[in-house]
Amino acid sequence: MLELLNNRRTIRKYTEKPVDKTLLDKLFKAATQASNTGNMQVYSVVVTTNQETKEKLSPAHFNQPMVKQAPVVLTFCADYNRFTNWCNIRQAEPGYANFQSFVAAFVDAIIFAQTFAVAAESEGLGICYLGTATYNAGEIIDTLNLPELVVPVTTLTVGYPAENPPVTDRLPLDAVVHYGDYKVFQPEELNALYAEKENSEFYRKFVAENNKETLAQVFTDVRYTKKNNEFFSEKYLAVLKRQGFLG
Amino acid sequence: MLELLNNRRTIRKYTEKPVDKTLLDKLFKAATQASNTGNMQVYSVVVTTNQETKEKLSPAHFNQPMVKQAPVVLTFCADYNRFTNWCNIRQAEPGYANFQSFVAAFVDAIIFAQTFAVAAESEGLGICYLGTATYNAGEIIDTLNLPELVVPVTTLTVGYPAENPPVTDRLPLDAVVHYGDYKVFQPEELNALYAEKENSEFYRKFVAENNKETLAQVFTDVRYTKKNNEFFSEKYLAVLKRQGFLG
Repeated sequence: MLELLNNRRTIRKYTEKPVDKTLLDKLFKAATQASNTGNMQVYSVVVTTNQETKEKLSPAHFNQPMVKQAPVVLTFCADYNRFTNWCNIRQAEPGYANFQSFVAAFVDAIIFAQTFAVAAESEGLGICYLGTATYNAGEIIDTLNLPELVVPVTTLTVGYPAENPPVTDRLPLDAVVHYGDYKVFQPEELNALYAEKENSEFYRKFVAENNKETLAQVFTDVRYTKKNNEFFSEKYLAVLKRQGFLG
Repeated sequence: MLELLNNRRTIRKYTEKPVDKTLLDKLFKAATQASNTGNMQVYSVVVTTNQETKEKLSPAHFNQPMVKQAPVVLTFCADYNRFTNWCNIRQAEPGYANFQSFVAAFVDAIIFAQTFAVAAESEGLGICYLGTATYNAGEIIDTLNLPELVVPVTTLTVGYPAENPPVTDRLPLDAVVHYGDYKVFQPEELNALYAEKENSEFYRKFVAENNKETLAQVFTDVRYTKKNNEFFSEKYLAVLKRQGFLG
């Protein structure tokens, strides 16, 4: 199992082979056994295999080619709709139209998504996460007709791999694991943690291609800019409000 | 692998056997290979094995006994602190003090946590998620001295199982998986989806013990009340603000 986790790669190109519903259901079933808040299962997934719907979803994902090309697109949602409707027909007054409930459902939806991802990879499928699900959640809600108390939190594209990229580099473990006390890194420690990444041919080329001086600048000036982050922050907060999770 | 996922159970009682740092590092390493946003790795985990710190953390988790009893307590965080500090020493202007950045880091932290959980279970360890991490995140931040742009999103207690509970029931797959169109369930459909759960001896007893008429009322009136959810919503929003993720 650890070998599988250590050797995984994100797959962005898929063969045309469809993914059986029987297999998908087996993977979803395994994923539902993962932990969730109070066993309320306040998450859901919308399975899109229809080409027309994929094309409608595509702009919300900035037209990343995986959305149209993958046989299966999965929109994972924080979902208090079903639970709330159930409360309403059981003489119980639901109190889930708030931020903390969204947060709990968010955690559960991601646990469900990642357990699905691990299960899928163990069965020879390839997956790619699309963070754009929270950038343009409103557009996805419109396309998929998601009702109140349902908010997309991530998207996965799924299919049989048509590429075999190398395993991606990661920072040394010390960058993310703090034993005992949390350590705020000093400049010399950051230099050490990022040295291998910054000195690698791959990232040097990446910096040059983006016409930047440092790798960090590629992130701040090109990939994840302050302006965009602030714009999409307001959009997602508006979506939480629209769907009933924020007063 | 699917068998492992299908047969897992949450473990709340642990033997006194400590968990080797070597094993923990092996599990963390595997977990870092999971997907993350732009390979920024904007998450972290604080590993608590010290009994005194566990006791200090305990009230934030409503004194659930797992916190003091588990050999290892893991606080998983959305973390833009290291990344921002790195940008600052690389002539790059970070723009991550906003909600969308928190959301991306939140997703990454949960993917990391759940991959760790699956890895841990595959090596014979037992885990329990504590949602209280988002209820009392401020108190956890104080205890662990977490700096700005670091916010707890979930906690895991980890150890060797000293109990062997049955696999927990789940709703039929149709309750959470929507093929094609999202389906808002009608009362008769909700009756069908919840029938097995509501008719089980286990839940009938659970309702009776809580002096309620329906299972839904146990959730709305006892376990996840509107009043508490609203209270902890304000608290968590205040924490996001305090840590710099919300204007």
